[in-house]
Amino acid sequence: MTTEPMTPRASREEQVLERIERARRRRPRVREERVTLAHGAGGKATQTLVEALFVEAFRNPALETLDDGAVLSVDGGRLVFTTDSHVVSPLFFPGGDIGELAVNGTVNDLAVCGARPLYLSAGFVLEEGFPVDDLRRIVASMADAAARAGVSIVTGDTKVVERGKADGCFITTSGIGVLDGEALSASAVRPGDAILVSGPIGDHGVTVMLARGELDLEADLTSDTAALHGLTAALLDAVPGGVRMMRDATRGGVATVLNEIAQASGLGVVLDEAAVPVRPAVAGACELLGIEPLYVACEGRFVAVVDGDRAGAALDALRGHPLGAGAALVGTVRDDPPGLVLLRTAFGGTRIADMLVGDPLPRIC
Amino acid sequence: MTTEPMTPRASREEQVLERIERARRRRPRVREERVTLAHGAGGKATQTLVEALFVEAFRNPALETLDDGAVLSVDGGRLVFTTDSHVVSPLFFPGGDIGELAVNGTVNDLAVCGARPLYLSAGFVLEEGFPVDDLRRIVASMADAAARAGVSIVTGDTKVVERGKADGCFITTSGIGVLDGEALSASAVRPGDAILVSGPIGDHGVTVMLARGELDLEADLTSDTAALHGLTAALLDAVPGGVRMMRDATRGGVATVLNEIAQASGLGVVLDEAAVPVRPAVAGACELLGIEPLYVACEGRFVAVVDGDRAGAALDALRGHPLGAGAALVGTVRDDPPGLVLLRTAFGGTRIADMLVGDPLPRIC
Repeated sequence: MTTEPMTPRASREEQVLERIERARRRRPRVREERVTLAHGAGGKATQTLVEALFVEAFRNPALETLDDGAVLSVDGGRLVFTTDSHVVSPLFFPGGDIGELAVNGTVNDLAVCGARPLYLSAGFVLEEGFPVDDLRRIVASMADAAARAGVSIVTGDTKVVERGKADGCFITTSGIGVLDGEALSASAVRPGDAILVSGPIGDHGVTVMLARGELDLEADLTSDTAALHGLTAALLDAVPGGVRMMRDATRGGVATVLNEIAQASGLGVVLDEAAVPVRPAVAGACELLGIEPLYVACEGRFVAVVDGDRAGAALDALRGHPLGAGAALVGTVRDDPPGLVLLRTAFGGTRIADMLVGDPLPRIC
Repeated sequence: MTTEPMTPRASREEQVLERIERARRRRPRVREERVTLAHGAGGKATQTLVEALFVEAFRNPALETLDDGAVLSVDGGRLVFTTDSHVVSPLFFPGGDIGELAVNGTVNDLAVCGARPLYLSAGFVLEEGFPVDDLRRIVASMADAAARAGVSIVTGDTKVVERGKADGCFITTSGIGVLDGEALSASAVRPGDAILVSGPIGDHGVTVMLARGELDLEADLTSDTAALHGLTAALLDAVPGGVRMMRDATRGGVATVLNEIAQASGLGVVLDEAAVPVRPAVAGACELLGIEPLYVACEGRFVAVVDGDRAGAALDALRGHPLGAGAALVGTVRDDPPGLVLLRTAFGGTRIADMLVGDPLPRIC
């Protein structure tokens, strides 16, 4: 390790910033010898894995944006292409199942890129002995979700592995959508922009956690899984040119999305904790679990960064749609602290809300 | 079971035909209560599962063709969209690995539809504890394969499941290609057409089987995994309008592809066993394993149905390309027996080569 001269009076925050800047200049490197659950949690370890291995090896402009979908020019038109593997456990949970999640998740990745979702593919990895009736139920729920979202599942594949070599059913969905308007991107984010969330956060993650039955907790909660393309379209229509970017807050939750926005834009995100909508049951379960709702996955909520002057109209548009009834303005974008998320706590203090470390809620999606 | 009157003199073949016709009029139904390895083998059980569950639930024209890829109209252009999950075991084998297979497999599904492969997505399901160096090797080999095939891996996802809940690494790739010419389809197949295979069959399946080390067999064999878009383009260029359809002979091998062609066209395929190129090492291993090379997976070979009058030019085009040097004319399309594959054996007899039943070679791709 090298030591660098540092002003003795550098504040704690300046030191943090320096450290982050130094880290940024280094090429990302996976230090672990073996894959850990944290590599799949959507937080810091996932980011390092993706940047150090995948982006490094596959290097191309679409991948390097680290957006949820790739914007592609094909035959003069602009498509968005996206993929997600689903390994949620249990497969069935209050409010949904892996099939619905797989369809909605891919529809949402297209929707938050500003695309109109059209076609989906589905790749199944099944474990020998998996009940055919469960598969039938999952497939029916995929068909329902696709019909509701107005997309067609046009191609697929099925593989079966021996008993004990998978966990029932994994589904990888990919999606194609058409981009009618501008491509949205974190690079469009500016100081003064407003940050909205489309509804109460953490319902999905806590519901799945409770459905595992490992905790002696009960709560009247259901997953928020939903296809968001109608809601994103309503927002884009209400404030044309005013939406900088959107991202669905899945693995790693809202805090991770905000960190990605801060890092990609090089700007600071100031989040007002008290303004973030969290159901009491979610807040209570999180307290018992020792995790923050801000890091818990949603499957039917997104974060939108909009022009600060049009935040009111944007919020009205979201609230006017059934899936956005609980939308809220939760923060603003500033010049400082660059690349970081500053949380104004409910008690009046401030602290940095970093990316998720470790994996408090494995296999949530 | 109902009994039907039957002419007492009906030949064995006529009885088989009747039985098949009756089966066809029934809606396909999965009779098993649990998923078996055969459901993933690409043969009869896979076909029933796909038709009874997936096609039935997702019903749309693109899916119902049961082609390797879906031909889609998007913004005036025609795209092909395809997906494949890869669960090969072992992950590394002579001549390739799961990463190369995942890229080539999806490139090939696009190529045999007549499309120009452009963009790939990759979804990884990793088992906790999987060596990062192995992942690095797999990713490097995907990058190499993509570069060789001229495609970009533009989007992806990584999930991690607990130790014992997967088998190291599963990869689902999806692909988008552009269709410049006509869409190829089994419905274009006509009596008098010629059937070609692009090279010696079964190398991949036998190589993977031997790499498992479960058999006390050694052979100087490597997988045939390769991206076939150059070879398919060469064929399409050489006999414009003369190629009816192509299909890569992966799971279930050449015999399964030929059955799919016979079923989709309602015509008969007559296959000349002696004309099918099989390396001596593959033939020997298959004999010891008690399986027929015709049912063993290739990952770099395809079957093409071409206008019978242009079979010579088509064969020359294949043989003029490094990946088609071992191409051969192996059969013809006739009116009879409708929907079936008739094998003229090397000993001068004939028998019906049905779809693969069971799974003699699990997790070959």
